[in-house]
Formats: sequence, structure tokens, C-alpha cells
Amino acid sequence: MPNFRPIFFVNGILLVFLGLFMLFPALADFSADASTENWQVFLTASMITCFVGVSSVLITRDRPSSLTTQQAFLLTTTVWLVLTAFGALPLYFSNYAPTYTDAFFEAMSGLTTTGSTVLTDLDEAPVGINLWRGLLQWLGGIGIIVMAIAILPMLQVGGMQLFKLESSDASEKILPRATEVASVIALIYVCFSFMCAFAYAAAGMDMFDATVHAMTTIATGGFSTHDESLGAYSSPYIHYTSVVFMILGSLPFVLYFQAVRGRPLALFRDWQVRWFFGILSVFVGIIFWYQHSAEIRSGSEAFQYALFNVTSIMTGTGYATDDYSAWGAFSVMVFFVVMFVGGCAGSTSCGIKIFRFQIMYQLLRVQMQKIIHPRGMFTLYYNGNRVADDVVSSVMSFLFMFFLCFAGLTICLSLIGLDTLTAFSAAATSIANVGPGLGEQIGPSGTFQDIPQVGKWLLCLGMLLGRLELFTVLVLFMPAFWRS
Amino acid sequence: MPNFRPIFFVNGILLVFLGLFMLFPALADFSADASTENWQVFLTASMITCFVGVSSVLITRDRPSSLTTQQAFLLTTTVWLVLTAFGALPLYFSNYAPTYTDAFFEAMSGLTTTGSTVLTDLDEAPVGINLWRGLLQWLGGIGIIVMAIAILPMLQVGGMQLFKLESSDASEKILPRATEVASVIALIYVCFSFMCAFAYAAAGMDMFDATVHAMTTIATGGFSTHDESLGAYSSPYIHYTSVVFMILGSLPFVLYFQAVRGRPLALFRDWQVRWFFGILSVFVGIIFWYQHSAEIRSGSEAFQYALFNVTSIMTGTGYATDDYSAWGAFSVMVFFVVMFVGGCAGSTSCGIKIFRFQIMYQLLRVQMQKIIHPRGMFTLYYNGNRVADDVVSSVMSFLFMFFLCFAGLTICLSLIGLDTLTAFSAAATSIANVGPGLGEQIGPSGTFQDIPQVGKWLLCLGMLLGRLELFTVLVLFMPAFWRS
Repeated sequence: MPNFRPIFFVNGILLVFLGLFMLFPALADFSADASTENWQVFLTASMITCFVGVSSVLITRDRPSSLTTQQAFLLTTTVWLVLTAFGALPLYFSNYAPTYTDAFFEAMSGLTTTGSTVLTDLDEAPVGINLWRGLLQWLGGIGIIVMAIAILPMLQVGGMQLFKLESSDASEKILPRATEVASVIALIYVCFSFMCAFAYAAAGMDMFDATVHAMTTIATGGFSTHDESLGAYSSPYIHYTSVVFMILGSLPFVLYFQAVRGRPLALFRDWQVRWFFGILSVFVGIIFWYQHSAEIRSGSEAFQYALFNVTSIMTGTGYATDDYSAWGAFSVMVFFVVMFVGGCAGSTSCGIKIFRFQIMYQLLRVQMQKIIHPRGMFTLYYNGNRVADDVVSSVMSFLFMFFLCFAGLTICLSLIGLDTLTAFSAAATSIANVGPGLGEQIGPSGTFQDIPQVGKWLLCLGMLLGRLELFTVLVLFMPAFWRS
Repeated sequence: MPNFRPIFFVNGILLVFLGLFMLFPALADFSADASTENWQVFLTASMITCFVGVSSVLITRDRPSSLTTQQAFLLTTTVWLVLTAFGALPLYFSNYAPTYTDAFFEAMSGLTTTGSTVLTDLDEAPVGINLWRGLLQWLGGIGIIVMAIAILPMLQVGGMQLFKLESSDASEKILPRATEVASVIALIYVCFSFMCAFAYAAAGMDMFDATVHAMTTIATGGFSTHDESLGAYSSPYIHYTSVVFMILGSLPFVLYFQAVRGRPLALFRDWQVRWFFGILSVFVGIIFWYQHSAEIRSGSEAFQYALFNVTSIMTGTGYATDDYSAWGAFSVMVFFVVMFVGGCAGSTSCGIKIFRFQIMYQLLRVQMQKIIHPRGMFTLYYNGNRVADDVVSSVMSFLFMFFLCFAGLTICLSLIGLDTLTAFSAAATSIANVGPGLGEQIGPSGTFQDIPQVGKWLLCLGMLLGRLELFTVLVLFMPAFWRS
């Protein structure tokens, strides 16, 4: 059996942080209306969370110096589960989420930056609730970037070893340690969040909405303080602001770090970034053109709706300014495909991610060449470097596992009674951490409220799997993992 | 530019064969009722086909001794296109197919052993038409086996190089040449067809129906002489007979050859065969259980319907005894998944095929082990032999290309106005060469008649791509192919 001490220790530390963050909504509710019980809910949850956190730090006593691979896997999955379980407490205590299942679903959707919601009447919710939902996504966003930079490449999961910071490339002058990088990137994340909040406020949002939306935009999360999501605002400035920061949240944060360190062009030279913009443009173009030809909208309005909604779904944010699933079968199909795409590795965004499509494209290109020239030797490249065979098979495995999980989840969801489109899109939106599904029930204008309880737990599993690149969670179910 | 002579030559030879086969329906119509024009239609089509065939043999004069890889690719694709174009003639001349598009679709669906139909009132159709539809599938079936044994392994398409007859394994005593094997296998195919026809007749079909259904069963094609498909028969004997021969058509024909040559156990030792029965049993079990729990059917009847319909869809035959897409969302989802599975390589069946799932499974297993033991060395095995890396990447490429083609086709179909489920299932059923789709329009109780013309051509492309393992057709669109 592995040594669980470091796992308790780190989870404990993070729980204390989470508990302290709960004081913000407590403060917000208190200053909004001290006579209601709203702020007490957060204070109670904070005390419980901090108490459990401090206890689990204390029982493990000594601070661990390093983690084994096995411990790193256990830590990654348990962190997300434990923080979700406690992050759900305020939502549950407030009675705003009718059951603990709902509270857990909402918290999981928050911390994984998915953005699916079971709550309605958000516009009338206490400020604390909406602030907490925003904070969960914001914390989830920075959490996932740090994990993608510091932990996943080490675990060799889903081809993430491609993004090891210790580059063997001699021309690479900066060889920074993961923890250093992580702190600079956290700073960049905070800066972006402030910039986004100011931009929203300047475009006409009130300060509270600007704050919450800034947190859920840069985290590509998608929780909103309105039932209508960003459709509640008619200002194109707000929508374009949102597009800019959703995109900023979907690019590799390591490149911002390099830009800060004096290599601003790295961002534009990166293959993943170029493909991201290429793919985004193609889909925006398709939806822009389709709105014209189906006579839904035209001119600059059509462009605005196409740009906003495609960016929102492709980056896995999940805001909506309209119910695009009511635009016809073609639109449904395009958005279904867009759901899977995702942003770049090392960002807050989710889905399959651009670099995996690039590896897949290269594999197919090489395959075609091999068929034509059976005796030729062909190599896969990424960002100008040769890609090792084990990275390729790691990426391939990820893609298969993604579709297996997707198919399995879809079948389970249809078994509990969801209709075909709802089951399909719920499975996709949870594994790809997007947010809204398709169709009337869970589409951009619906919620996940009426999904049966079992379905909500299945979707929580889907969100967790998707966020932690599948294998991180799945290895825990292998007997060989526990024997090693 | 390649030398087109051998391509004209082989296509010419095959056209003459096709023309001669048209004399069977001519004869059948003549003996049924010589006063109608039905038989003249076939005679005319036969003369045209034979004339073009003989001409193209004559203009190329000399018989080619061997083919280059480039010529083999060109030949494979053009054979299927040319035979379809001429095989459609009788259907078009008879006015039974309203347009040439319909006739071409029906002929493509026949020769690729798909089984999607645009024709209705089949029960009242002239015997010649139904016989011709059966013959197209029967010829397509043997065509694809010969191709899978003699040509595809040479072209290294989609991992088919795994089935090279010239095995390097020293324990393999039989090293037969592809052409020898092909002729023995053709004989086995004819024997199975006779056995199937007799079994159907013994179970209560009239001789004509037994003949046509035997041809479309062993070819896992799925054309029927009835609008209700095999649902027109209530006899369980007929349904069970059909199951047996659909399965026989889905196993590797090379193993029958080995059985004839004195190695009968080879069939049961083969990994692909074992997995085929395993996967089939699981899905039959699921649908059997589901019919009970959803109170659709129970007992032996439920088993019969589950076994028949799952076997029919998984093997890509496409017969139906009931509209399973009306059994509820769960059933739709399961059949949607089953559609992709397919039978074994080197059989008449279609889809992704069992061995690719086995390679994928092995890849995922090895990946998990690698994550747990990053420094370990792990090997992929197939039938006890080590799988070469290029076979693995070939299989992976196939799977990606399959889903890319599927997604592309679905989007195109929804663009021309098909609803979501129809577009999804039409794309799947054509690329996997299954036959019926899902939903009211193209489900087991519908036809493809009302699909727009453009949609029919797109589906023809899908059927051709699926039948020729995608890459065989796709390389022709690479500029590098023509330069080499």
C-alpha cells in the first residue's frame, strides 16, 4: 500500500485555502444584507472545511519532500474529489441546491470549469452563492494550469509529456523549475482576471457581475449570474470582451510566461496557437455563413453571435447568447463537433485539445505517405521537433479512451431514460467540460436540474475524467496500480 | 502518369462477367412472364455491359503480368465504381428506380453489401429485379473477400498487412499463393450459399426467396425481396438459419480454407473469432435483458429478436424483424454502437472490424501499464505474435480516419436538411456498410427513397469509402500519389 501521508497533507493544506476563500462570499452576503442567514451558511462551511483541513495536516505532521508517481496520481484525483465535496457544502447548507447531489454536481461543474448548472433563478440568488460559483471556477482554472504544467507531464498521461518544461532542446535557454513557473503563471492569471473584470465593467456590467464573469471567463468555466447567461446583456462590447478573455484563457499559459521573460513572439510561433486560431476561424465562418443562408441573422449581428457562441463552446466555456440548438439540425451537428475540440494544452480550457489533433493529423499524413511509398521513412513533428513514438501512442490511447468513455457514458445515460440527443450531448459536454448540452432540456436555455440523481453522479464522473485527462483517474482502477 | 492499360483490361474482364450474370435475371423474368418487357431490360443492359467490357479488353490488347502498387490502388477503386455504374443499368432501364441516382445508389448498396434500399413495393417487383439485387450483393461479397485476401494486405491499408498470407512464422506450414487461396475460398463461398438456400427452403421459404436471401445472407448484404425484410416471415427457423449464415459470412474465410486443408481447430483458436462471439454475446445479452425490463417482449421470443437483430446489425447485414429503433432511446443507442463493430477481417462483413478493436484494446492495456511502470517495456500481441509498430499506427490511422469521415459525412448530410438522428445514422450505416439507419425515415421500417439526390451521392461515397477501407480511395486524392 502507498504511503497516504503526503496525500492527506496536501489535501489538508488545500482545504484550508478553500475554507478561507469561503469567507469572501460570507463577507459579500454580510455586507449585502446582514439580517439574512446567507452569510452564516458560508461561515459555517468555512469553519468545517478549515477544521478538517487543519486536522488532516496535523495528523500527518511532517511535510513531505517529494512524491512518488503513485502518490502523484492519488493526490491529483483525491484533490479534485475532496475539494468538490467540501466546496459543495455552502450550496447544500444554503438550501439553494435542493439535495447534496445537486450541490456536489454544481461544485464539480465549478472546479472542473465545466459550467453545467442545476440551479435556476440565478438572478435572484444571494450574491454569496453567485460569488462562490465564480470562485470555484476561478480556483479550478488556476488549479488545472498548475497541474498541467507541474504534474501531468511527469505522469506521462495523454501525451502531456510533450510539454515537459525541462526541454532537451539546446536552443532553449530558459530551463525553469515547475514551481517557479507555476507562481509566475498564477500572477499572470490574476492579472488577466483583473483586466477582464475592468473590461467588463467598462463595457457596462455592474461591478459584481463583472467580477464573477471575469473569474468564470478566464477560467473558461461558463457559470453566469444570470439564467440567460451572457444573453442577458445586449451590448456587443461585453460579448467581444468575453471572446477576448475566453481565448486568452485557452492559450498555453507557459507562452505568456515566456512572453513576460522577453520572448513575446513565442506565442505567435507556437503551432498549437496557430491551429487554435485556424480551427476557430473555420467554425466561426461556417456558423456565420449558416446564419445567413438559413436566414436566422445577418451582417455584423450574425458575426457577433457566431464568434461568441463558437468561441464559448470550442474553448469549453459554455456561455451562450442564444439557444443555438434551436437553429436547426446543421447547427446542432456543428456545435456537437465543436464541443470536442477544446483549447491548447496548459490552458484552463478542456476537451480533446488542439495538440492532439495535430498529432493525429501528422499520423494520418505520414500514413498516407507510407501507403504511397511503402519503403520510405517518415517522421512526426511537433513545433519543429521530432515526436517520440511513445508520445504518439500516448495521444492515440487518449483519443480512444475519450471515445470509449463518451460512448459508455452515453449508453448509461440513455439507460436511465434520457432521450438520444440529450444523452449524447450530456456525455459530450461533461467529458469535454463544456457546460451546456444540446436539445431543449440541457441546451443553452435549459439546465441539468431534471436529470435523474444517478445521471448527475454519472456526469460528475464524466467531468472528473475529462478534467484529469482520463488516465489519471482510470489508473486507480487497475489492480496493478495498487500492487506497484 | 501511371499505365492505365492493366486497369482497363481487368475492368473489361469483370464487366463481361457482370454482363453475363445479367442473363440470369433476364432468364428468370422470361420464364416468369415472357409477355412483359422485364426480361428485355436485362438483355439490353447485358449487351451494353458486355460490349463495353470486350471493347476495353480489346483496346488494351496484351494481358498484364503484374501490377504496381499505384495500379493496384487505381484498379481497386475503379472496379467498384465501374461495376456499380453498369450494375445500375438494369434497375434504371426497368424504370423501377425512378432516376439513375437511385439506380446507382441501389447498385452501390448491393456491390458494397451494404443493404440500404431506395426501392419500395419489393414484394410486387418483377423477379428479375429482386434476383439482380441479390446477385449484386453476392458478387460484392465474394469480391470483397478476394480483395481482402489478395490485394489489401499488399497495399498496407488500415492494418490489413496483419493478414498477409506469406507468414514469416516458421511454424506456419501452409504458404499458399493468394490466387490459389482465392479460388478455394470462392468454392467455399458457393457451397455456403447453396447450404443457406437449402436451409431457408427447408425452414419454409419458397425457392426464389430462399435463393435471393441465401445470396444476401452469406454476403452479409441484407437486401430482401420483402419490404418488411425477414420480418415478413414469422418462423423462428428462418430467423435462426439466417443468424447462422450471417455469422458464417462474418468469420475469416481464410480459416475455412485452413479447416478444409485439415486444420479445423484454427477457427476456434483464432483470437478474432473468439472476440467476435464474445462481443456478439454481450450485445445480444444487453438487448435481451432490455426487452424484458422495458416489457417489449419476454422469454424465447425476446431472445430470438435480440439474437437476430443484433447479429444482423453487428455483421453489417441489415435485415430486420422489427423496428428496433422504436424500442426507446437505450435501444437506439445500443444499435448505434453495434453498427460500428462489424465482423472479422477477410470476411464479407463490414464496419471497423474485430481485429482493430483488439489492437486498440492492447494499445490501451499497454498504455496503462506504461503509466504505472514508466520504465517498463511492453509489447502488443495478436494471435500470439508480436505486432509490428507500423501495423499499430496503420490501425490507429484507420480508426481516426473512420471517425473523421463519419463526422464529415454527418455534417454534410445535416447541411442538406436531414434531422440529427437521420444524419448521424445514415452516415454510420453507409460507412460501416450496415444498411438501415435509425429513426422513422431510414430506420428498419423505412427506406432511403426520400433522401435528397445530393444526399444519395454522399452516401454512395460513404459506402465506397467504408467498403474499400477508406485509404484505398483516399490516397487517390493525394497529389503525391499521382507524382510517384
